Amino acid sequence: MKNVYMIGIGLIGGSFAIDIKAHYPDTVIHGISRKETTLDKALELHLIDKKAKLEDIKNADLVIVSIPVDATVKLLPTILDYIADNTLVIDAGSTKKAICEVVEHHAKRRNFLACHPIAGTENSGPTAAIAGLYKGKTNIICEVEKTTFKLQEKALDLFRAIGMRIRYMDAVSHDKHIAYVSHLSHISSFMLGKTVIEKEKNERDIFDMAGSGFASTVRLAKSSPAMWTPIFKQNKENVIETLEEYIHNLQQFKELMQQDNFESIYNEMESTNHIKQILNGIK
Amino acid sequence: MKNVYMIGIGLIGGSFAIDIKAHYPDTVIHGISRKETTLDKALELHLIDKKAKLEDIKNADLVIVSIPVDATVKLLPTILDYIADNTLVIDAGSTKKAICEVVEHHAKRRNFLACHPIAGTENSGPTAAIAGLYKGKTNIICEVEKTTFKLQEKALDLFRAIGMRIRYMDAVSHDKHIAYVSHLSHISSFMLGKTVIEKEKNERDIFDMAGSGFASTVRLAKSSPAMWTPIFKQNKENVIETLEEYIHNLQQFKELMQQDNFESIYNEMESTNHIKQILNGIK
Repeated sequence: MKNVYMIGIGLIGGSFAIDIKAHYPDTVIHGISRKETTLDKALELHLIDKKAKLEDIKNADLVIVSIPVDATVKLLPTILDYIADNTLVIDAGSTKKAICEVVEHHAKRRNFLACHPIAGTENSGPTAAIAGLYKGKTNIICEVEKTTFKLQEKALDLFRAIGMRIRYMDAVSHDKHIAYVSHLSHISSFMLGKTVIEKEKNERDIFDMAGSGFASTVRLAKSSPAMWTPIFKQNKENVIETLEEYIHNLQQFKELMQQDNFESIYNEMESTNHIKQILNGIK
Repeated sequence: MKNVYMIGIGLIGGSFAIDIKAHYPDTVIHGISRKETTLDKALELHLIDKKAKLEDIKNADLVIVSIPVDATVKLLPTILDYIADNTLVIDAGSTKKAICEVVEHHAKRRNFLACHPIAGTENSGPTAAIAGLYKGKTNIICEVEKTTFKLQEKALDLFRAIGMRIRYMDAVSHDKHIAYVSHLSHISSFMLGKTVIEKEKNERDIFDMAGSGFASTVRLAKSSPAMWTPIFKQNKENVIETLEEYIHNLQQFKELMQQDNFESIYNEMESTNHIKQILNGIK
């Protein structure tokens, strides 16, 4: 793996770059970005060795695409057009159906491996990149059977080296499940932040009264709108379904309060405490 | 401060006990609890030096009440009946109006300081107690003017010693603001947990796909129903108001998605990103 091209060099791409350098010190990391300032920052932070242009990926052993999912859908066919026969292309998008569909009939479909590393923080851009982000995290691979076996192996070697666990899933199931365990969390967090900001115009009051519990529930409201808007758009149907169920449950909780049915409220909370056992496994 | 009596010796009381011992090594900590097993555990963990009965608080220099807020409302008048003239009683309840009201006309009202330390974790019971829980955290004191000046000073010395910042507020404002920055977060978290558990019966799937973002937003769903049910009950009107606004915002977000108005969705998220600056101050 001599030449790796990073298309997008923010939190996800940048953290991949750091780990790849650590495990494959001879690799030359080339950075590609729409924004010159991002590339300059990535060079300055030593995330990449060189700046590159999209057409340069014809020299790539590996291309990692970590840009917003709408940009991935737009660019992925062109990326596959440019690459050589032995190049592996992986993405890191939080949706999988639209991305898989857009290259379904591409002549180089077998060079692409659809991935979703369940890793990240609420920060974004090259300065957010950190070493070891992927260690112990799950990487969901979709439609693995559509990728050439040799390139699957190459990808698995990399994921193993940086410490990821692998799970296989079809793209439709991925998008459905991830709406519940990730996309809905982001909306719940954004709307919680909005509700509190709207009400508490005096920030000093929020600051002084808010504790770690509040910070924890609204942490995701710091996330990048440029990254999340296209995710919600691509996963619209599933996300709306989760939102409807979430709103229904909140509505019901409110009605129980209005009816002074605090016994049921106690039971609701007690049965949800069960989340403890589920969360114990999440790093 | 020779004799400190802890009424309730869970996360909050136990953590107070640890810090008091650290800063006032000569203090004898007496534990009072409805449950004998809690006292045994607290003794075993060296949170308390001795078990005690409620009537023993006549010997107290300081009484710290950290039990569910419904129990505080029930017990606080009796506690004030029992204490000596120079005893300071503080509570740590997440609601303040009902607690202040129940002792409003008590002959020993001036021995009581109504407090809400904004500190805690999602865990409960004596085993959840930790050293330094209160360091750098805010303690909201309500109706300070109703407490004898000398006992105010005594309380402030303690809070200063264990590293707390003090904010003064009236009980009605406290309950209104705290509904937004704490109580609503808990409901949002519980209902998020419920929504996901209901949908994803196969826990293995949740476990594998959920990342740190999900864990962060549902962390509070591990909280104790015995503690939170009476909080919601006592702060019913304020909590319902926050819930209505939160549901309204979620509903609106869903409608924007249904209308494919992703430009507005982008703007919603971007303006809520402002929470970053607010959260920077929260530890």
